[in-house]
Amino acid sequence: MCRWMGWLGQDVLIDELLFKTQHGIVDQSLHSRMGAETTNGDGFGMGWYGDGEGPGVYHSVAPAWSDANLRELAAHIESPLFLAHVRAAIGSPVQQTNCHPFRHGNWLFVHNGFINDFHLLRRDLMLAIAPDQFADVQGSTDTEVVFHLALTLGLEDDPIAAMERTIGLIETLAAERNVASVVQGTFGISDGTSLWAVRYATEGPARSLFASADVDAVKRLHPDNPRLQQLSEGDRLIVSEPFADLPGLWKEIPEATAVCARRGGELEEHPFEPQSQTRVTVTQHAPSAALS
Amino acid sequence: MCRWMGWLGQDVLIDELLFKTQHGIVDQSLHSRMGAETTNGDGFGMGWYGDGEGPGVYHSVAPAWSDANLRELAAHIESPLFLAHVRAAIGSPVQQTNCHPFRHGNWLFVHNGFINDFHLLRRDLMLAIAPDQFADVQGSTDTEVVFHLALTLGLEDDPIAAMERTIGLIETLAAERNVASVVQGTFGISDGTSLWAVRYATEGPARSLFASADVDAVKRLHPDNPRLQQLSEGDRLIVSEPFADLPGLWKEIPEATAVCARRGGELEEHPFEPQSQTRVTVTQHAPSAALS
Amino acid sequence: MCRWMGWLGQDVLIDELLFKTQHGIVDQSLHSRMGAETTNGDGFGMGWYGDGEGPGVYHSVAPAWSDANLRELAAHIESPLFLAHVRAAIGSPVQQTNCHPFRHGNWLFVHNGFINDFHLLRRDLMLAIAPDQFADVQGSTDTEVVFHLALTLGLEDDPIAAMERTIGLIETLAAERNVASVVQGTFGISDGTSLWAVRYATEGPARSLFASADVDAVKRLHPDNPRLQQLSEGDRLIVSEPFADLPGLWKEIPEATAVCARRGGELEEHPFEPQSQTRVTVTQHAPSAALS
Amino acid sequence: MCRWMGWLGQDVLIDELLFKTQHGIVDQSLHSRMGAETTNGDGFGMGWYGDGEGPGVYHSVAPAWSDANLRELAAHIESPLFLAHVRAAIGSPVQQTNCHPFRHGNWLFVHNGFINDFHLLRRDLMLAIAPDQFADVQGSTDTEVVFHLALTLGLEDDPIAAMERTIGLIETLAAERNVASVVQGTFGISDGTSLWAVRYATEGPARSLFASADVDAVKRLHPDNPRLQQLSEGDRLIVSEPFADLPGLWKEIPEATAVCARRGGELEEHPFEPQSQTRVTVTQHAPSAALS
Repeated sequence: MCRWMGWLGQDVLIDELLFKTQHGIVDQSLHSRMGAETTNGDGFGMGWYGDGEGPGVYHSVAPAWSDANLRELAAHIESPLFLAHVRAAIGSPVQQTNCHPFRHGNWLFVHNGFINDFHLLRRDLMLAIAPDQFADVQGSTDTEVVFHLALTLGLEDDPIAAMERTIGLIETLAAERNVASVVQGTFGISDGTSLWAVRYATEGPARSLFASADVDAVKRLHPDNPRLQQLSEGDRLIVSEPFADLPGLWKEIPEATAVCARRGGELEEHPFEPQSQTRVTVTQHAPSAALS
Repeated sequence: MCRWMGWLGQDVLIDELLFKTQHGIVDQSLHSRMGAETTNGDGFGMGWYGDGEGPGVYHSVAPAWSDANLRELAAHIESPLFLAHVRAAIGSPVQQTNCHPFRHGNWLFVHNGFINDFHLLRRDLMLAIAPDQFADVQGSTDTEVVFHLALTLGLEDDPIAAMERTIGLIETLAAERNVASVVQGTFGISDGTSLWAVRYATEGPARSLFASADVDAVKRLHPDNPRLQQLSEGDRLIVSEPFADLPGLWKEIPEATAVCARRGGELEEHPFEPQSQTRVTVTQHAPSAALS
Repeated sequence: MCRWMGWLGQDVLIDELLFKTQHGIVDQSLHSRMGAETTNGDGFGMGWYGDGEGPGVYHSVAPAWSDANLRELAAHIESPLFLAHVRAAIGSPVQQTNCHPFRHGNWLFVHNGFINDFHLLRRDLMLAIAPDQFADVQGSTDTEVVFHLALTLGLEDDPIAAMERTIGLIETLAAERNVASVVQGTFGISDGTSLWAVRYATEGPARSLFASADVDAVKRLHPDNPRLQQLSEGDRLIVSEPFADLPGLWKEIPEATAVCARRGGELEEHPFEPQSQTRVTVTQHAPSAALS
Repeated sequence: MCRWMGWLGQDVLIDELLFKTQHGIVDQSLHSRMGAETTNGDGFGMGWYGDGEGPGVYHSVAPAWSDANLRELAAHIESPLFLAHVRAAIGSPVQQTNCHPFRHGNWLFVHNGFINDFHLLRRDLMLAIAPDQFADVQGSTDTEVVFHLALTLGLEDDPIAAMERTIGLIETLAAERNVASVVQGTFGISDGTSLWAVRYATEGPARSLFASADVDAVKRLHPDNPRLQQLSEGDRLIVSEPFADLPGLWKEIPEATAVCARRGGELEEHPFEPQSQTRVTVTQHAPSAALS
């Protein structure tokens, strides 16, 4: 279980949203209300677009609430588009290479949830990654494998379609291995221009996901809130869990749904439908000794 | 490049050999004389047999010279058989899951050297690991993959024969991928009873490796050295690099050689001859999308 | 807020009490029931008597629940007397030098609670430490200062009397500085032979503290519990918070009370009465510039 | 022993100077040529002025050469004025609170060198810190104490004069305690507008210190070096050790000298003359028990 947030809008100091917001994500690291676990103390990560080439990432194994560097960076880095993530590890080690966001070129990727019985599926899933990307998998999380599968299956051309193929592939493999309820969670994706999010579970309710409402509506609803009055048209938040208890500020993203927030404030919503992947038998080379 | 040491003999406090020895392995972490790099500051690990079930391991991302916990543990853990390792990372991240020794059941495994162009071979090599062990690979080093290959190829039955098959397999794959000089290094292996070591390079000179001489000979050579007079029959050290500049104390292990130190002090030496692995074509399942 | 435990008795593998016990202290790091905070994720420490000279200490900034080394060490270190501590930092940094237990020679010291407004008192308190011990204070916690004050005031001769003087001194200074409710908490102390504990608050209820009941009584109450049947005469636990919900297993230590557990199982209980310290005016040298 | 660098000039991505420069400071962390030690692997720190209020600081206990976050931050943070520091600890723990730069308000402070026999002087020196700043000392280095002394003695009004008083005070105390050769090193100081540096040793040669030459002279000397041609008028580097072996690029700062680099490129040079501090006897309160 984890919590994440994404911001797309005007340039902000990251700590405006990480630390200075009521029930923000750093607070959620210690006291999540809607998560499967209340504590998300197994590392922190953020990825941001701003100065320099491509996104920067900061990965920390310290709990977000006690990481002195995180406070410094958040207070001194400005960005119009970033993703932040607090982690609750489920079995895999607490190390920087297991912290989200994962990055490939200009793309960032975060996940709240899990691949069920991942140890039973890890080999099959890694085999399905494009061979020349195989060595890029540096950590041991399910999420990093999902990300590289999605890259293999076209993420950079059409992120939501690639995620539908990826989840479909995972569900196909899981069925063969008798793994139930294989995919659970929400995913956040960005290329530095737009922000995509997916909410989906193979079975049962998916982890929660919310988007901030249109800025105009928010301002009209809370004319006396100075913080909200600073929002500009086009500012958009996508979060695992609402930050503040303000009516009208958040809209829940439905189950099995993908959204895309674009510059200017547009929020598109699509049904998310995994594409089952037929499998073919191919000839692979493998050393005899290993297979005997 | 790394440095390692193994001890088999009487019960000793680990710091006798880690900290209190002239030019011991912690000193080598800062000032190696014979290594390809003089600094081995990318983490430390030790594995020991003693109290509790199976070997204990301690993995640290701090340089050995500054790790306060390491000093404490070494001064308060006694063991008749342990392996210690200082790491100089070549590309892979400094994280605990990349620290040696690696462990499986009762077995420990350390390595000084590298698999050349590992990123080109990683997928093939991981495919050759027994499928049910695939998910046990937690880090991103070449060594952990070599260890799991060796386990797949019979390490627990005959460690040296398994290493000959493993290195043979790696050389076979490397030849197909046009990777030259693929294996370089020394390996240390233990099951809690014996201590095996291999010195081998596909081409050119291999990393250095030394064993301590017979205790009786050492004592006769240095009758006035109180430290050496404490040695008991059966005590044996295997090291990347000699600790102290004492003539007659160390014997170099020849290139392409495996040794086995057994309880009682016996040191067997064998030629090390990689067994080239023929490969067969097998039918594997893989998702079509990933292979298109 | 923190949680701690002390063991005095037969040799045990530390993980018997850290990990294998229902609601043990590692579980309390994530889900404390009786603490002021439910999460104690700001580092871990243990100190134990066993192999080697004096107590060993292990200090970790990782939360206890995710520290892989802690699991290894607990499973492979045996001790007849140890203290373990999970930390919830209140302001001071999460670093190894702020982890309990603190050590001086053969003595270990842990604390659950706080010195109120410590920043207002730190200079005065550090000035009261014996000048030749001043430089031994390596971290920035209140507890380390309290420990060095107690050492200054006779801890090694009579730990409880020294603590009464120490708390009295702190209360005297606090009164001058108008700091209310200055001392809160429980303290655990050992010299490798006995285990002392203090429960005290300047005002209001003190943090909870419990000792295990006599072994015979415990066995009679739970004749069918195989774990408890393994207890030997003389085994004694002192804990911030009971481990298991077994009636008759724990006895609460009253407020303003000190206890001493001795080898053999004896548990002495005394009222704890801080000794107010009169203060004298002394001539100290100080640079003029600093005081102008 | 440590190494540091300061930049004052046009906005640059920090990695231009940290990673992309021949023999830059990260390279010096592994292979210093002019330092008392060749390895500076005991942590890294940088402080920069840019987005957000006041300077940001990043402190890391990992060696600079292996810190993945440092690479990210350096490649994605732009600044017209920053200080970076690689540390070789001399006795004090490797922890973030011991990493330079130290910060107070808008001021940053770095140091290469040491206070001799600091443990003998620590109490006296900390006593000379303004009492209301005493609790701000969070780590255990000599440098942090020197910084707070300098703040006490007027750093914010006149940094060089304050440093002359501070070093004078330290030398006065050292004389009373029979500590020889008490101050050694170079200091770097900034308020976000100017960059000050001091080179001084109580006895013998001081640690090395260099400033970059005037931009015009540098460009004329190396007309074919594209990197140097990008320099703007007013760009100035101050470094423990020159980065590149280019004749005419660096000018050594003499012993017992302070320099001030100002916006626009001006570099003032002054003799540095410690001001011995007379001491007065003052009445201080201290608990009797602590002094008996």
